[in-house]
Amino acid sequence: MSTTSAQAAIDYAHARRAELMAGFQELLTIPSISTDPAYKTEVERCADWIVAEMARIGFQQCRRIPTAGHPVVYGEWLEAGPDQPTVLIYAHYDVQPVDPLGLWQSSPFEPTIRDGKIFARGTLDDKSGVWANLKACEAILATDGKLPVNVKLFFEGEEETGSPNMQSFVEEHQALLAADALLICDGPFDPEQPTIPYALRGMVAAEVLVRGADHDLHSGVFGGAIHNPIHLVGQMVGSFHDANGRILIPGFYDRVRKLSETELAALQEAWTLSRATWTAKAGVKHLWGETLASQPERLTALPTLDVNGIWGGYQGQGIKTVIPAQAGFKVTMRLVADQDPHEIGELFKAHLFTFACPTLAIEVDIQITDPPLTMAREHPVVEAVQRTFATTLGKRALLTRLGGSLPIGGMFQQTLGIPMTSIGLCSGAGGHAPNEYINEEHFYLGIDAAIHFYYYLAETMAGASA
Amino acid sequence: MSTTSAQAAIDYAHARRAELMAGFQELLTIPSISTDPAYKTEVERCADWIVAEMARIGFQQCRRIPTAGHPVVYGEWLEAGPDQPTVLIYAHYDVQPVDPLGLWQSSPFEPTIRDGKIFARGTLDDKSGVWANLKACEAILATDGKLPVNVKLFFEGEEETGSPNMQSFVEEHQALLAADALLICDGPFDPEQPTIPYALRGMVAAEVLVRGADHDLHSGVFGGAIHNPIHLVGQMVGSFHDANGRILIPGFYDRVRKLSETELAALQEAWTLSRATWTAKAGVKHLWGETLASQPERLTALPTLDVNGIWGGYQGQGIKTVIPAQAGFKVTMRLVADQDPHEIGELFKAHLFTFACPTLAIEVDIQITDPPLTMAREHPVVEAVQRTFATTLGKRALLTRLGGSLPIGGMFQQTLGIPMTSIGLCSGAGGHAPNEYINEEHFYLGIDAAIHFYYYLAETMAGASA
Repeated sequence: MSTTSAQAAIDYAHARRAELMAGFQELLTIPSISTDPAYKTEVERCADWIVAEMARIGFQQCRRIPTAGHPVVYGEWLEAGPDQPTVLIYAHYDVQPVDPLGLWQSSPFEPTIRDGKIFARGTLDDKSGVWANLKACEAILATDGKLPVNVKLFFEGEEETGSPNMQSFVEEHQALLAADALLICDGPFDPEQPTIPYALRGMVAAEVLVRGADHDLHSGVFGGAIHNPIHLVGQMVGSFHDANGRILIPGFYDRVRKLSETELAALQEAWTLSRATWTAKAGVKHLWGETLASQPERLTALPTLDVNGIWGGYQGQGIKTVIPAQAGFKVTMRLVADQDPHEIGELFKAHLFTFACPTLAIEVDIQITDPPLTMAREHPVVEAVQRTFATTLGKRALLTRLGGSLPIGGMFQQTLGIPMTSIGLCSGAGGHAPNEYINEEHFYLGIDAAIHFYYYLAETMAGASA
Repeated sequence: MSTTSAQAAIDYAHARRAELMAGFQELLTIPSISTDPAYKTEVERCADWIVAEMARIGFQQCRRIPTAGHPVVYGEWLEAGPDQPTVLIYAHYDVQPVDPLGLWQSSPFEPTIRDGKIFARGTLDDKSGVWANLKACEAILATDGKLPVNVKLFFEGEEETGSPNMQSFVEEHQALLAADALLICDGPFDPEQPTIPYALRGMVAAEVLVRGADHDLHSGVFGGAIHNPIHLVGQMVGSFHDANGRILIPGFYDRVRKLSETELAALQEAWTLSRATWTAKAGVKHLWGETLASQPERLTALPTLDVNGIWGGYQGQGIKTVIPAQAGFKVTMRLVADQDPHEIGELFKAHLFTFACPTLAIEVDIQITDPPLTMAREHPVVEAVQRTFATTLGKRALLTRLGGSLPIGGMFQQTLGIPMTSIGLCSGAGGHAPNEYINEEHFYLGIDAAIHFYYYLAETMAGASA
């Protein structure tokens, strides 16, 4: 059943490539930047646009569900019946900010195809995840009259802000989100060797502000008797790592779980990138932290601390002889099992307050505390993804660890307890940087893959329940 | 002669207060921000405006003289004859940038009078210096038919950028600028106790850039194997001072000249501000660096290093999980005799390059190297300023040291060798900060003072040459 029906839907989609691309580009023009309050109405406009598309395709209960932040987009198709499994599909429709804007070769919200690549903010992260599922379901419904499984679509609007309202949302909508399996569609596949991540790092995010005088001061008139807040910010930031990259916050590594030999071997095996390929991709000549552990361990099995932004005083051209009233920085720490994000937040704060002095005020705001996540390694939903990759890319995926975070995953895990896995439905780069793109060829292949997944899931879940 | 003639000119000015204020406010509306290339034409417009005003008053040779940067404004009145001394008057018509704009209570280029204060960028620093001299000469010419001394007006357009082109300008225009005395009009007077600074700190300004990857990277995907340039910037900035405020760059203090007991006693005597008054003015609760030296010594007789600006990564609202491609900071160091700015620049660079590592590139750009300045303590031009203060403020000035810098002073000193001093022609605050203002009452008094100065200078210089 699967192969023939899937092929009909795929043929249907292939015959409508121009239409699939035009719709995707329309979605990409909406600047749904969730981290910046100035774009609130654009995030909402994007949600409405997707709701309308979902309803047009034939989903029911399509709606924007409000949260204290940006809305969730929800729609369902449950006519496969109670003997068929229900899959909850997750993707997010919000996007990263675009600065530094000057580094974009084409406007981030005017999608442009160059050299077989679609450039725009959100192509990779994660509007392709939204779009591939919508278009796969549309093709299946058009050719098969029904979906092979029951489907609930859940598209988040605040993933790029760390999903601050999703924990309470998931808790309050457990019945709505109930399902037999969960598929997270966020991030690319590697066409050479697909992977299925089963472990992601948690995250603690914090903002630190140091305040001095109540107004900016002339550095000639006041310099020598005023404690400059930038200097303390420098001392704090400079205190986080030793020269090898080891984090110096006392207690930071205490709960880091050492990988078993089996897991370490699997991690090394799944690490398919050569050093030259990886450094070229990163745009660096030399790696950092090499004495700490192997590269895949550092990237996925060890925690990190990165200052993502720093500011204070004059940043324009030329000089300004000022002692600024304040300075600050933003930090994210990536955590691994079994680090506890609340405990790490407290250790971070305690470390910063060792810099306390009468001359400057220190404020630490812990903004995100997401635990590390471990997902299914053996389950029918994982097998459905494996068969999808085998069919579309010619090989099964390696199960691996990721360095990034998936806050929503931990919330699903804690609250809904649904077996979950993830799939990439595009390939590309630049998710949090200028010139984000996906490969045009794999944009279409991602829709094929989503079609296959729905049919394979009906097979693997049926086998599981038999 | 002096008293009667000066009084006639003062009466003339007093009868035209509304006109003096209207003209000043028109000058203040021109955003002559010299540090930002975007304002280049506004700086030029300001120069043209002053040239026109100067010519209208009766000066000759009025013109804009080009430099590699912003133009100098020049005008002269030499009809007092060869038996009268010639005074070169220096002020600057460029202004500081206005950011953070949000902290201004009224728009910086829309002069506003509130509570007896004139608020606008440039009121204090230094358009009042330009205006008081122009209006004093206008009043004297209108009432006396001539000025009591020969006058050359030299208004700079790039003081706030550190006068990068003035050294060559002064060297190339020695004949034009030749004079018997030089009066620098930049900065306020203290109406309670006027001072005449005789020592100012030099300045080394530098910009430091640290480069890592060739594009911004996702901190989840790359975090742990990429050296974050913000971290190195933090370590550099954090390395400049110990907890007492002492600068840790090796060799930095080697040439600092210790004050003689006489000079130290004079410095303490001239330090009229109470601790409570000073901290209130600075907007702080606690002073910094107290174990190093007394406050007036730290502010004027010891060198400083202040980071005036720092940047890198994401500075907007919310979080962005990025490892930025670069980060940087701006530094100014204030030098005292006998520190050599070129040597200090090299020590600074050498210190930063101790942080060199294969993972990040460090660039240090030394932008300004001005030596510390020592001016006349006993000279007829100083005596003319003393008599001016005695008449307008009721007391003679204390000779003192200043913490700020006066790059042009060192250039005049080195190249022209003219005896020089300075005078404040206004009172106010906020010269390099939001809500810059001068007191309205002292705006008018500054014009009176300039009138007195010209007459007193004819007396004291005549006595000197007799």
